[in-house]
Amino acid sequence: MKTDIDRLMTERGFDALVVTGDAAHNFPRYYLTDGAHVTGGLVIKKCGADPIMVVNPMETEEAAKSGLQVYSYYDLGWAELLKESKGDRQLAEVHLWGRGLEKAGVASGKVAVYGVGDLNVYIEMVKLLATSYPQYDFCGELGVSVFDSAAVTKGADEIARIRSVAQRTSEVLAATWEYIASHCADGDRVVKADGTPLTIGSVKGFVRRALLDRGLEDTDMIFAQGRDGGFPHSRGEEDMALKQGQAIVFDLFPREIGGGYFHDCTRTWSIGYATPEVKQAFDEVQDAFDVAFDNFRINMPAKAMQEAVQSYLESKGHPTSRSHPGTNVGYVHGLGHGVGLKIHERPSIGHQSEDTLISGNVITIEPGVYYPERGFGVRLEDTCYVADDGQLLPLTDFHKELVLPLKG
Amino acid sequence: MKTDIDRLMTERGFDALVVTGDAAHNFPRYYLTDGAHVTGGLVIKKCGADPIMVVNPMETEEAAKSGLQVYSYYDLGWAELLKESKGDRQLAEVHLWGRGLEKAGVASGKVAVYGVGDLNVYIEMVKLLATSYPQYDFCGELGVSVFDSAAVTKGADEIARIRSVAQRTSEVLAATWEYIASHCADGDRVVKADGTPLTIGSVKGFVRRALLDRGLEDTDMIFAQGRDGGFPHSRGEEDMALKQGQAIVFDLFPREIGGGYFHDCTRTWSIGYATPEVKQAFDEVQDAFDVAFDNFRINMPAKAMQEAVQSYLESKGHPTSRSHPGTNVGYVHGLGHGVGLKIHERPSIGHQSEDTLISGNVITIEPGVYYPERGFGVRLEDTCYVADDGQLLPLTDFHKELVLPLKG
Repeated sequence: MKTDIDRLMTERGFDALVVTGDAAHNFPRYYLTDGAHVTGGLVIKKCGADPIMVVNPMETEEAAKSGLQVYSYYDLGWAELLKESKGDRQLAEVHLWGRGLEKAGVASGKVAVYGVGDLNVYIEMVKLLATSYPQYDFCGELGVSVFDSAAVTKGADEIARIRSVAQRTSEVLAATWEYIASHCADGDRVVKADGTPLTIGSVKGFVRRALLDRGLEDTDMIFAQGRDGGFPHSRGEEDMALKQGQAIVFDLFPREIGGGYFHDCTRTWSIGYATPEVKQAFDEVQDAFDVAFDNFRINMPAKAMQEAVQSYLESKGHPTSRSHPGTNVGYVHGLGHGVGLKIHERPSIGHQSEDTLISGNVITIEPGVYYPERGFGVRLEDTCYVADDGQLLPLTDFHKELVLPLKG
Repeated sequence: MKTDIDRLMTERGFDALVVTGDAAHNFPRYYLTDGAHVTGGLVIKKCGADPIMVVNPMETEEAAKSGLQVYSYYDLGWAELLKESKGDRQLAEVHLWGRGLEKAGVASGKVAVYGVGDLNVYIEMVKLLATSYPQYDFCGELGVSVFDSAAVTKGADEIARIRSVAQRTSEVLAATWEYIASHCADGDRVVKADGTPLTIGSVKGFVRRALLDRGLEDTDMIFAQGRDGGFPHSRGEEDMALKQGQAIVFDLFPREIGGGYFHDCTRTWSIGYATPEVKQAFDEVQDAFDVAFDNFRINMPAKAMQEAVQSYLESKGHPTSRSHPGTNVGYVHGLGHGVGLKIHERPSIGHQSEDTLISGNVITIEPGVYYPERGFGVRLEDTCYVADDGQLLPLTDFHKELVLPLKG
């Protein structure tokens, strides 16, 4: 939780954090500023103190919504810095960092740099900073960063937001099921009332509108049919017509509009009927989901959950990334991951994970098997919450039926 | 253009480029791979050769759509690297870079690093790379990067895509105008048929749906009324009811769905009627737009266009960022910027810019004046294209009327 940041900084010997980089999709800035919509600038946090923001003068009003102390570039002498650097904005920015650190009361010490931005720029900026300000030791951080670690557990306000996103996403799953079901069949093709084929592009359009109506935005959903579903990250072809008897992997991971919390869920549907081999794979994946869920114990090692699923699926004859490292078929990926302001957070639930599952975690459970050469993939995924009492509670609220019957 | 990259690398003495970082919103990766949807991995380009991709085995199929040579992590010995690093994925990744560079035929020399990603990670990764592979000199790049410079001019295929986004965005401006116009007034409030107020949130919802229907996605539009419009980057308050006689700054900058090309445009609307001071400011901003447009000459310094606008607006009594550095009122920002796969690209059209306007540029022209304490801001913006014959051609195709009459 955000309240852990000072402790995490102290453990790492960090005297200050600087967050910089892009406007959108910049998790550490969103986290520290409660989602203030600024397009650049700095957030500087001295260990033990509240962060301050340094922003473009056009954005002081927007930045103030964070509740933090806000300075405009000009409050820190931007005009003078630009003059001294002869108009070189990046050089002037180096000195803006220096003045910002001073304003935040950081006299010297270890300064860790975060944010999402252009790597070419910041790799060089850090070199210039080191030369200009030898009193600071500017560094990055590998492994589980301060922010990754803080975000491993969610506060009550975060859980409430994620729960709401989950509920709305589940409504969209239901609406999409009904939308497809309202169509007719023409042979194996699914067609609209006018006889033209229902395409994946049309379904994705429906899903995006259904999300928008609920204040959510798509972040590149997967709706992959047949062989495409056999590649876990294939998005699906827009122009492909939906067909009966083909497994469709529908992985939906929308976010609050404008950047914010995610929810992640997957269903596998087969329209009209399922082939026996898809049905069998589906049943095994559903059982694998239950194996994961039933094996959950508070404070267990995350990898034990994955290993239980790997053992189960191996017993059913599926290669796994444990039994066959690098395999492209069978159960090829991790069981799950944390979800929050990023779609992939800690804990990581893989067989090489060293994470522990603790209360406050929001995690996915998503077993799947993939056989592109046999023309299908199957995955099922819920996002779940580890409650204070140690219970694992699913946040996704939609049935896991395979066969979607047409009613049109 | 993309074909400039080898020349730009040679000019800078770069033997290779490595692009890494996030899945989405990663301009250099999109640019080099024609928008292949991969969530990580590396793109490595040796100077004078085609790039290669190194991706998660799950994503080889998706990566192959780029038309580039694709290797999976396992093709480069990922299993063995993970074992050697005792499961430390970041350390294993360092050696994946080493093997990828070897695969791309880069034996030694200067390797520039690009992409958009977590700064804390890559600041440290580059240090590890430098230690493990002393035959390479890993660097970033300040100023106008290889990719920034290549993107300054657009190829015919890029222009065609941007033109299509412009056309669809212009349709959305028209649809939004009609949508608002279809409402009634209750005193100064704009109301729906049932008498409830029309809010900014409702209008944004309408706009997002209208974009989706045309294959575009909103990237955090501005729809800011009254005093909020006086802060150039305020997004507008969702719950605020639309009122007659208030200036509304509507800045719409959507992108092709799933990441792709942008279009950027702004209109200022006043519903029912405009106050005399808003009308005057609007007329001056419209004239400022024409001053910019009429002053355009191929191969002119970008700053000359901004200076012409600053001189005009100063002559009308508006403070500018040239006459009053750091001002929060008057004409406080640059005149425009390049637009492409990023919303803000080169050339930059500010009075301190050293860029030149050349054929193949796609630029915005967006003068505005801001007076939050007087309760308004005004901005007008078109995206324009500098054609091969040296003409400046607007891509935005929607009228610049201020007063939006209600017909409901």
